[in-house]
Amino acid sequence: MRKIKLLIQYDGSAYHGWAAQPEMPTIQGTLTDAIEKLTARRVELFGSSRTDAGVHALGQVAAFTIDSPVPTENFARALNNMLPDDIAVVEAVHVPDSFDPISDTKSKIYRYTIYTGPVRPVIQIRYCWHRPGTLNVEAMQAAAKILLGMHDFKSFASAADNRESSIRTIIKCDVSGKDNEITFDVQADGFLYNMVRNIVGTLVEVGRRRWTAADIERILAAKDRCQAGPIAPASGLCLMRIFY
Amino acid sequence: MRKIKLLIQYDGSAYHGWAAQPEMPTIQGTLTDAIEKLTARRVELFGSSRTDAGVHALGQVAAFTIDSPVPTENFARALNNMLPDDIAVVEAVHVPDSFDPISDTKSKIYRYTIYTGPVRPVIQIRYCWHRPGTLNVEAMQAAAKILLGMHDFKSFASAADNRESSIRTIIKCDVSGKDNEITFDVQADGFLYNMVRNIVGTLVEVGRRRWTAADIERILAAKDRCQAGPIAPASGLCLMRIFY
Repeated sequence: MRKIKLLIQYDGSAYHGWAAQPEMPTIQGTLTDAIEKLTARRVELFGSSRTDAGVHALGQVAAFTIDSPVPTENFARALNNMLPDDIAVVEAVHVPDSFDPISDTKSKIYRYTIYTGPVRPVIQIRYCWHRPGTLNVEAMQAAAKILLGMHDFKSFASAADNRESSIRTIIKCDVSGKDNEITFDVQADGFLYNMVRNIVGTLVEVGRRRWTAADIERILAAKDRCQAGPIAPASGLCLMRIFY
Repeated sequence: MRKIKLLIQYDGSAYHGWAAQPEMPTIQGTLTDAIEKLTARRVELFGSSRTDAGVHALGQVAAFTIDSPVPTENFARALNNMLPDDIAVVEAVHVPDSFDPISDTKSKIYRYTIYTGPVRPVIQIRYCWHRPGTLNVEAMQAAAKILLGMHDFKSFASAADNRESSIRTIIKCDVSGKDNEITFDVQADGFLYNMVRNIVGTLVEVGRRRWTAADIERILAAKDRCQAGPIAPASGLCLMRIFY
């Protein structure tokens, strides 16, 4: 028996998220099927992030324990031959049995992309939120700084989140704009359910001058999801990297 | 009656090319249906380039003549509301009746993209040729220069091309590499059937050191398709701009 850690990339457009569900195409389900096809073993695959339907990943991590003659170094290539084009295993490495892809996580970075041009961008449409109209990047940058550090982010967690504590530490919350594209890079020690999408939806309200940085302070203090802005669509979100 | 010129962008992945075919999703067919839905008129839509199945466009041009009360300036937005996400009309302008999207073309630019990294790029896979392995960019640049100017490009035309003359003038044939991505920008006064894909497939043989620039001279002189390299896949090709 050995534990194998996978670094995984996917275009989430065609999937009902990471977590396996009966009768639905999911990333976890598709990968587990590919591992079974390769090794004739049905493993339990633990993913680090339960990305939602339509969310993408360039740095998802998952692990499984297996007893198989297939050498670890052959897994990535062999699985890629069995996976559809929109999922790829970048690497497979042997890790200590104690490795836990969830609890060993030090921090994660997500990127969110908004396209602000008037005409939908046909080539990037699956990887962005097409929101025509100017947004003030400087105002969003200033508001984003307020979220840095350790806070109770209850106002930015969707109701479905029932974890005990909603206190998290945001290490990085950068907003940058170039041509018609605005990107948000958010790094934290952990994320609540829909946290990045709720933060982006709220910062957009600052970008369109409905709210100011002071409103972000008020929303954060309220610890009430109803105070924050609307959730940004899944298509713009990508899990970039998990740090261990 | 007035003539309207459309500037069109599309992700060609889901379509059997530009040209309408019965029972097949095509760009021309989808656009013609959208115009009919908007105006209750069945027009004949003339495209400048008959892009192949799977080929993309950021600068396709098409024109049609119509008698409709819909103002020209409303066409782009109204058509975009009726079109699927992977086709967009960037602008619709009123042009003189004499405008012909094909014969008025002065030149066109296509871009071809190769991704050379070992793992398939899940986010760009629909817009590139995933060809793992190093290619010598300098050697391809030198070979590409040989194609510049007026030549008989018969060696680079697929057999299905039955146009009278295979003489064309290539104005630009640039090869550039950055990280794992190599792009080919080819501008000419006109293109033979599959010409860019045949040029790219041939230059790749130079990039992998099977051939040299001297072979490109030999292939060009032979005027025989069998002398050139294999055709590069459609997914890497994008019609960037048409000059009038």
